[in-house]
Amino acid sequence: MTASSRTIRVAGAQMGPTQRADSRAHTLDRLIALLENAAAQGAQLVVFPELALTTFFPRWPMEEAELLSYFERAMPNPQVQPLFDRARALGVGFYLGYAELAEDGRRFNSAITTGPDGVILGRYRKVHLPGSREIRPGQRYQQLEKRYFEYGDLGFPAFRGPRAWGSPVLGMLICNDRRWPEGWRCYGLQGVELMLMGYNSAAYDPNGGESESAELRTFHSTLAVQANAYMNATWAVSVAKAGVEDGAGLIGGSVIVDPNGLVVAQAKTLEDEVIVAEVDLDACRQGKEKMFDFAAHRRPQHYRRIVDQVGAVPPA
Amino acid sequence: MTASSRTIRVAGAQMGPTQRADSRAHTLDRLIALLENAAAQGAQLVVFPELALTTFFPRWPMEEAELLSYFERAMPNPQVQPLFDRARALGVGFYLGYAELAEDGRRFNSAITTGPDGVILGRYRKVHLPGSREIRPGQRYQQLEKRYFEYGDLGFPAFRGPRAWGSPVLGMLICNDRRWPEGWRCYGLQGVELMLMGYNSAAYDPNGGESESAELRTFHSTLAVQANAYMNATWAVSVAKAGVEDGAGLIGGSVIVDPNGLVVAQAKTLEDEVIVAEVDLDACRQGKEKMFDFAAHRRPQHYRRIVDQVGAVPPA
Repeated sequence: MTASSRTIRVAGAQMGPTQRADSRAHTLDRLIALLENAAAQGAQLVVFPELALTTFFPRWPMEEAELLSYFERAMPNPQVQPLFDRARALGVGFYLGYAELAEDGRRFNSAITTGPDGVILGRYRKVHLPGSREIRPGQRYQQLEKRYFEYGDLGFPAFRGPRAWGSPVLGMLICNDRRWPEGWRCYGLQGVELMLMGYNSAAYDPNGGESESAELRTFHSTLAVQANAYMNATWAVSVAKAGVEDGAGLIGGSVIVDPNGLVVAQAKTLEDEVIVAEVDLDACRQGKEKMFDFAAHRRPQHYRRIVDQVGAVPPA
Repeated sequence: MTASSRTIRVAGAQMGPTQRADSRAHTLDRLIALLENAAAQGAQLVVFPELALTTFFPRWPMEEAELLSYFERAMPNPQVQPLFDRARALGVGFYLGYAELAEDGRRFNSAITTGPDGVILGRYRKVHLPGSREIRPGQRYQQLEKRYFEYGDLGFPAFRGPRAWGSPVLGMLICNDRRWPEGWRCYGLQGVELMLMGYNSAAYDPNGGESESAELRTFHSTLAVQANAYMNATWAVSVAKAGVEDGAGLIGGSVIVDPNGLVVAQAKTLEDEVIVAEVDLDACRQGKEKMFDFAAHRRPQHYRRIVDQVGAVPPA
């Protein structure tokens, strides 16, 4: 605790690529090594990427049997218990993205956040699923999130972290969600102070089509987090799975961003890499009490289009 | 017309300071000089700042008689007619911010956009008024927008530009509006391709209190425009009144931003300065049809908080 009793040391645990052939045990060892690295740097909360336990499997059509092998039937479960055990022993909480197979059979692209005691504090299911439901014929790589997952049904539920962290208001997003100001604002309207998110974002078109550069894609990823953190006066940790997975490239660029939208830590590689920052939660107050004093300045009667229509409707 | 038949050359006409003692005629001469400068560079549409005809008068308490002298009873009116005449002669449209005294006596912080024929294409009244209604005792400089203006009552009405410009979908904001993603999204949901806005933003606390640096404030101004342009796949022109007005400093940093959120032109001074860019409206299509295909990806049932509550309500 430095400047304030509401200071927490936070880490982003960027992961390099995970290949389709990699064993679960191998990947879990990497997660535990990253956790220990972060804890050794004093981190109290570690953010892992989206779908951190596996490769980004929505890039392939696959049979039901293989598909199910990527999903978790419970969280925790025996395969991931060693990560939970090590985190509790270190007194470190974590955000973890994973594919969720719910008891009722529904499938979600999900994330949890645990406290320093290993107890799950919050659950989130990705709302903004990109990609397509149909398999695109003739394409080696797909983006089948809309096929493999249902849309998240929990909304954007903020939750409190423990007293040891200063009882922060926490929120979670997953990957594409970070580009949608609506989700951020729903958390902002719950007074969020620290946003946690992981991602797997393509660095180029793996099918060889013309597309934006990896540099531009990384800029977009960072820009969205910076501006939404600023406009909601919150800290944000945004963490990549990076590098080339079975021929498909993913951007890196994991960042920790302050409530002014300034990047305070950023990953430099496309590999397993830990970034750390001291997060003064009270640094959110300036924005929340002045420029973004929602109660004083918002005018919801003029925002109806945001909920009354889905797609764009241009004027005649 | 270069790359596309939907290309329009756009200018931002940043203004240096306007002092309280400056005559209207002097200020109008400056506007016309900026217009001619932009037209000479081929601009078809010129964006002037917020409250471009006067100093930023909400910084002072004042008697009704002086206050009314800052307002326009009609637009155009004899005082500003020379600007309209010159613009029509040059075939150049413009965005102009001004204080509006409506026929029914209501007062708004407003903007219009005219076409190349001098006809008003769209009207906007600022929704997000910053500042306070009450005069803060003992402070030399105030921010009395909530006292001097009513909240805009027109919502965020997109409108079409003329065929000569490629029939773009246009939208307007004013100053503080640019920091509120709700307004941008309401335009995005109307398929906006070119956002126009002017501002007067403090460079420091003129009363001498501790505050953010001018550099950080300029970063915030640019960041909000970049990210909201990206997230709505639109071009944006954001134009300052800059420099020191009667002892109160205003940031500059006028920008033209593309639908990727990249700055393509930026003012370098705090003075009267024209920035110009070639705006390919069809460059919005990539974002609108893929990443930000609203119809495919938005989930409004989870956005209810945005309209159902005004202020932030933290979890227990």
